Amino acid sequence: MKCVSLLFLAIVALMAQDRRVSFQVKLPTAQKVEVMPGGGANGLGKGPFPMTRSADGVWSTTIGPVQPGFHYYWFLVDGVPVNDPAADSFYGWGRNVSGVDVPDPKLDFYEPKDVPHGEVRMHWYRSKATGKMRRAFVYAPPGYDANPKTRYPVLYLQHGAGESERGWTAQGRANFILDNLLAAKQAKPMLIVMDNGYAGKTNELFGDVLIQDLIPEIDRSYRTKPDRKHRALAGLSMGGGQALSNGLAHTELFAYVGLFSGAGARNFDVAKAVVAAKLSLFWIGCGTEDFLYPANLKMHEALTGAAIRHEWFPSPGLHDWQVWRLHLHTFAPKLFRD
Amino acid sequence: MKCVSLLFLAIVALMAQDRRVSFQVKLPTAQKVEVMPGGGANGLGKGPFPMTRSADGVWSTTIGPVQPGFHYYWFLVDGVPVNDPAADSFYGWGRNVSGVDVPDPKLDFYEPKDVPHGEVRMHWYRSKATGKMRRAFVYAPPGYDANPKTRYPVLYLQHGAGESERGWTAQGRANFILDNLLAAKQAKPMLIVMDNGYAGKTNELFGDVLIQDLIPEIDRSYRTKPDRKHRALAGLSMGGGQALSNGLAHTELFAYVGLFSGAGARNFDVAKAVVAAKLSLFWIGCGTEDFLYPANLKMHEALTGAAIRHEWFPSPGLHDWQVWRLHLHTFAPKLFRD
Repeated sequence: MKCVSLLFLAIVALMAQDRRVSFQVKLPTAQKVEVMPGGGANGLGKGPFPMTRSADGVWSTTIGPVQPGFHYYWFLVDGVPVNDPAADSFYGWGRNVSGVDVPDPKLDFYEPKDVPHGEVRMHWYRSKATGKMRRAFVYAPPGYDANPKTRYPVLYLQHGAGESERGWTAQGRANFILDNLLAAKQAKPMLIVMDNGYAGKTNELFGDVLIQDLIPEIDRSYRTKPDRKHRALAGLSMGGGQALSNGLAHTELFAYVGLFSGAGARNFDVAKAVVAAKLSLFWIGCGTEDFLYPANLKMHEALTGAAIRHEWFPSPGLHDWQVWRLHLHTFAPKLFRD
Repeated sequence: MKCVSLLFLAIVALMAQDRRVSFQVKLPTAQKVEVMPGGGANGLGKGPFPMTRSADGVWSTTIGPVQPGFHYYWFLVDGVPVNDPAADSFYGWGRNVSGVDVPDPKLDFYEPKDVPHGEVRMHWYRSKATGKMRRAFVYAPPGYDANPKTRYPVLYLQHGAGESERGWTAQGRANFILDNLLAAKQAKPMLIVMDNGYAGKTNELFGDVLIQDLIPEIDRSYRTKPDRKHRALAGLSMGGGQALSNGLAHTELFAYVGLFSGAGARNFDVAKAVVAAKLSLFWIGCGTEDFLYPANLKMHEALTGAAIRHEWFPSPGLHDWQVWRLHLHTFAPKLFRD
């Protein structure tokens, strides 16, 4: 391309240290412009937030203090949802929308640091279950290439509804979370496989992809330890539902199952969960302000009542990525210890 | 995320087999909506193209026949540039904009096929030249992991202005182009390293990153053949200028240099190009309808006049990705033959 278009004159969201976020966008012809956080449970707060127009057509507003972490948003321009032309976009609501990551001065476990970095690999493969080519993202830990005789355990880690295989790295920073844990020797070196949770029209078909296509593909392509004691399955929200159903249906394949704000809690049947006794770890986390918290709490209580061993990890937070980053940071060190 | 937002009701661009492209977007409150191709030299044609409104607020238009290949575009909503909420976005004009890939019924060399697929790896590293962390994309050919004693030559391949390290795979499909060439045994297995051409405020600083940081990092991290006979440097447009200046300044590092519609042709000094005699290949391609074609033709003529050995590859086409895909497809088989 020759040059940057002069059509675009927006200014990216700016973050002050006090967790206030400023938005600016030049839209001279608009009558009304607002900032709209993505969804009702967003750390930016309840929108839409009105923006005010300057004489030269620049609309701006400052909101906050907001919750730290990654938040989806877009502008409403005369009611029409429009991405911030000056911000990064993320696949989040079934399409690319804008996102802002508000630093937490008290947390740095997900920040890139001067430690050895693993790679994130885009891995293409043919799925027999769908008949189509698919793409998985694979985190290979530092040292994977340098130690060609070492074999590794695998965590299969799924995103939420409306997201994609990019979510856990682009929004969730799973790679930096593991880099930091590994540098501190707080987790075992592992591969993390992040696939797309959509496979045709049903969630059931994703299970076929996972079991029939993806696991064999990864075991062929990477130096894995291809047994249940070295295989974990976890996911957030919709992906938590997929982890619950596939993990409990296949305890011969997985010894570790993690639900992060799992949607599967809503229609949970404790009678079907007795097989969880075969797991080395059945881990359930949820933000206490999450709309799924009551369902997850009820699931935890039902499991406790049925004396089914599990770990319950409630923590302050919404149904958002800041909680899921903490879930991964908490869950990963517990894996592959048997 | 809980569900897909109902705010978004656009319909993605649809392509008919006759190279016509239909655009539809629901924007009930807009007064005027147009399709705007990205830039003046775009295979969609010269915009903006007016869209017409239906009674329920859906704007639509069909344009074409258009040129096959990848094209940037956006909507102008009452004059304001807005990405297509239902299309993929690509980092192209200094930010994420919409893109559409129009199939060419006569060409499939860049399509994903049922052949072995290499991986594209996101590789993070610390740059001493900039003091910051950077991310390179690295294509590892099929078999790279399975043959842990094999060493590979490396092509360093740069994007154009306003683009990023994602461009050559997301827009250019460099990985599928190489997968297909390798399956047909038309190219030597190689690594392709695609970094971000921006490094601080000057193009010169990118040269420091390339020479001082990136090449040593890649030679440490991958099983390369770390000598000039197994190292190539190429780029498109701005990246072609970077390949010209860095390639000729460092013939001790590179034996192959490729310019794809190179911007460096505009202020080309043939006296400085005599060192090109040391190269195994000095390759110059340009589309004959490209605004840089006259400058590249003049460079070719000056080189011919000075008896400096080079290959000149003019072909029909604009300053766009369809030409650069063909350039890579043509250039890669010529590499690492000495």
